[in-house]
Amino acid sequence: MPERVTVWTYDWVPDGPRGYVRDLRLRWALEEAGIEYAVASVPLSDRGAEHFARQPFGQVPFLDDGDFRLFESGACLLHLAEKSEALMPRDAEGRADTLQWLVAGLNSVEMVTVPWWFIKISGTAENPLAGWMKQRFDRLEAVLTQREWLAASRFTIADILMSDVLRIPGDLGELESYAALKAYVARACSRPAFQKARRDQLAHFEAADAAGNRA
Amino acid sequence: MPERVTVWTYDWVPDGPRGYVRDLRLRWALEEAGIEYAVASVPLSDRGAEHFARQPFGQVPFLDDGDFRLFESGACLLHLAEKSEALMPRDAEGRADTLQWLVAGLNSVEMVTVPWWFIKISGTAENPLAGWMKQRFDRLEAVLTQREWLAASRFTIADILMSDVLRIPGDLGELESYAALKAYVARACSRPAFQKARRDQLAHFEAADAAGNRA
Repeated sequence: MPERVTVWTYDWVPDGPRGYVRDLRLRWALEEAGIEYAVASVPLSDRGAEHFARQPFGQVPFLDDGDFRLFESGACLLHLAEKSEALMPRDAEGRADTLQWLVAGLNSVEMVTVPWWFIKISGTAENPLAGWMKQRFDRLEAVLTQREWLAASRFTIADILMSDVLRIPGDLGELESYAALKAYVARACSRPAFQKARRDQLAHFEAADAAGNRA
Repeated sequence: MPERVTVWTYDWVPDGPRGYVRDLRLRWALEEAGIEYAVASVPLSDRGAEHFARQPFGQVPFLDDGDFRLFESGACLLHLAEKSEALMPRDAEGRADTLQWLVAGLNSVEMVTVPWWFIKISGTAENPLAGWMKQRFDRLEAVLTQREWLAASRFTIADILMSDVLRIPGDLGELESYAALKAYVARACSRPAFQKARRDQLAHFEAADAAGNRA
């Protein structure tokens, strides 16, 4: 009997990151694909050698799939996409299109949005990355004005990644002048698979509160 | 006859980025794999609709491979790696290990180093990303103290990506207290394929000077 896919996340996080921890990306993909999975936890507050052996930067998520072990949400999404056409087309062109847009999310957009957010919460008066982020959004707005999903004329893991990347600046009001980006994030987040993934993540951390993991 | 692989870069860049423009990553991989390729240029100064149609953020590199077109250096490296075992092992575990470390380069390390560099050259007195970058380097130092290459016990595209990511902070003196990271970058950059890729990039832009592209 094959072992079930297991998504690893933290045992507890404060209210702020709830609904945003990146295990959500894997939950979302697994829900889209209709693949059953388990969720397991590592301590947030006392990251031991076992955690660093699984994730060299001490982050989450990471994934077990039978004997298979993988870290980095982007890599895990590509791995899961091999399991289901719901996550990525099977033809070479569609796969390549999905791949390039997944990497664009990781390395052209999130490379700016996460450091921008990091600086913003540190309370710096003027965010030195604001202009760069605006440039990226301008370009992405031009793309998403003309299409519903990023790659291969359909929903793929590239959209799971990119819409999740855009949620944080969106929730902080940074997408107000980007109608296509706002509509894109809303479209992605209205998918039942996203809704369930988010509900399940919130429930995971609420259960941790109830268990007194760190309340 | 199959069309030759073509790497697209800018027609000219100022001295600063020479030797660092990301077409270098693709040149390097192609040299490692012994695959012949051509180099083509798009204007740096006047990026037209054709450029944005090929690369939605107006960046380089992008790749032609017959009818196949791809952007994002990380995605191009994964595509090239399918062509040659010199770039990635063929077994599932080795592939996954290469993939997770490639994505770690893109999304856990470069996500910090490039915004750090962006803020540094803008002349901000105190770089708000310095502490975060140090945390990433600390973790990576722990990994590279124990192994020669990141993934699959051998040189892969993950090393092309990660060592190229580390070159910029290294050249700016930020790796002085990281003996393993310094040695890793030196080891990667001593490879003949890197040397040739870098020489060829410099020659490309020198030829542009000579042609008066923007001198």
